[in-house]
Amino acid sequence: MSGRLFVIGLGPGAAEMQTPQATQALALASDLLGYGPYLARAPQQAGQIRHASDNREELARARHGLCLAASGKTVALLSGGDAGVFGMAAAVFEAIEHGEPAWRALEVEVVPGVSAMFAVAARLGAPLGHDFCAISLSDNLKPWALVRQRLTAAARAGFVMALYNPLSRARPWQLGDAFALLRGLLPGDTQVAFATAVSRADERIDIMDLAVADPARADMRTLVLVGSAATRRIDRPGQPPWLYTPRQAGESAA
Amino acid sequence: MSGRLFVIGLGPGAAEMQTPQATQALALASDLLGYGPYLARAPQQAGQIRHASDNREELARARHGLCLAASGKTVALLSGGDAGVFGMAAAVFEAIEHGEPAWRALEVEVVPGVSAMFAVAARLGAPLGHDFCAISLSDNLKPWALVRQRLTAAARAGFVMALYNPLSRARPWQLGDAFALLRGLLPGDTQVAFATAVSRADERIDIMDLAVADPARADMRTLVLVGSAATRRIDRPGQPPWLYTPRQAGESAA
Repeated sequence: MSGRLFVIGLGPGAAEMQTPQATQALALASDLLGYGPYLARAPQQAGQIRHASDNREELARARHGLCLAASGKTVALLSGGDAGVFGMAAAVFEAIEHGEPAWRALEVEVVPGVSAMFAVAARLGAPLGHDFCAISLSDNLKPWALVRQRLTAAARAGFVMALYNPLSRARPWQLGDAFALLRGLLPGDTQVAFATAVSRADERIDIMDLAVADPARADMRTLVLVGSAATRRIDRPGQPPWLYTPRQAGESAA
Repeated sequence: MSGRLFVIGLGPGAAEMQTPQATQALALASDLLGYGPYLARAPQQAGQIRHASDNREELARARHGLCLAASGKTVALLSGGDAGVFGMAAAVFEAIEHGEPAWRALEVEVVPGVSAMFAVAARLGAPLGHDFCAISLSDNLKPWALVRQRLTAAARAGFVMALYNPLSRARPWQLGDAFALLRGLLPGDTQVAFATAVSRADERIDIMDLAVADPARADMRTLVLVGSAATRRIDRPGQPPWLYTPRQAGESAA
């Protein structure tokens, strides 16, 4: 068993936010697997084979990568942001646990990256300056009632929240329901940020009060940050405001 | 007002995990400010001035950096991991909000980095594979009762937890109290990982069941990850086990 599998977080999009470790792992690979837009971020390299697949086929892609590695290839599975945050890493280990026993002997290296939530936070100021959480709003793999339970727990305990996968064509109402729930738990002037394509040419960031936050502002490429009651907005003349959450952040809504 | 302030996340320690953006910002700076061990990670550069300060003096260091930037310098404030995660970024914006009005006109750029929690998770497998949170166990800036409230909420709602600042000489009992609390809320075989100096030469990682997790294993440089009830351990012959949390992670202890 001589194959090797890299699970690479490419960062949010800008080349300057991709780690040297990720760049080196890409160069070592004989086979690259991933969603098309992530493959497009790897430089062309002679002899390297690219296997594009749909964004929703994580488990099949993980198994494909493991099969190739078990046959002796050096494989790179690509994720945006950090591969361990709603990315390919969990799918790989899920496939290993339920797959060929020999896969446990493979060399698997997860290459961490700059996650979308931290790139977004950096653009805004320091909204994650105190305790925070990340919640995927996708109910493809878990019941919506559990998402609501987690949103409620996080709001009551004063966590700032990064909401991943806020909506898609197949999940059009979840973000609206989440905002409605949070309006019952947090002050109306709680800060909400919509960040789309951060660090890329078409980056767009909007900040709204929770009371008027409009789910229609989000799309599949948007990360939504919801502040805690302690999160502060610093207005600046002629420039976008900064958001930050004080380190003491002692308040909670409970 | 022509000064510029970078707040830089250097990543967990390995040079290959530091982004090109961070490296470029270090090279641009006339003045570097930070805790000694972070300054030591910046390459020596002729004419660049270094200002070392104690780890606990974030707010004073932030003000110093803002003063230098306001006088026209290009300043870099250094953090380990990501500057927005219990790092210098929140202290900077706190200083701006309560400081000189002119500071709001400064160019402030937060440079995100690979956070300790994601570097640790990558080493372990994919323990943050589903919804997760980050909690600082330091009660220097918030009451311990609030930390307990957040631990309780996170455990009940099925979040994986990254515990920062688990203990120090001045805070010797907090991690033990946190474990005692969590033992009443999560199964005894919940996976707990202690990760010290990840990506550095003296890296050390230990995995224990919550029932027997020993606070004495942690020190100031340790990040503690506590799995959810859904987190799985994959044992391997002759190698350290992998931890991962399945993407569905539908279970919660509540």
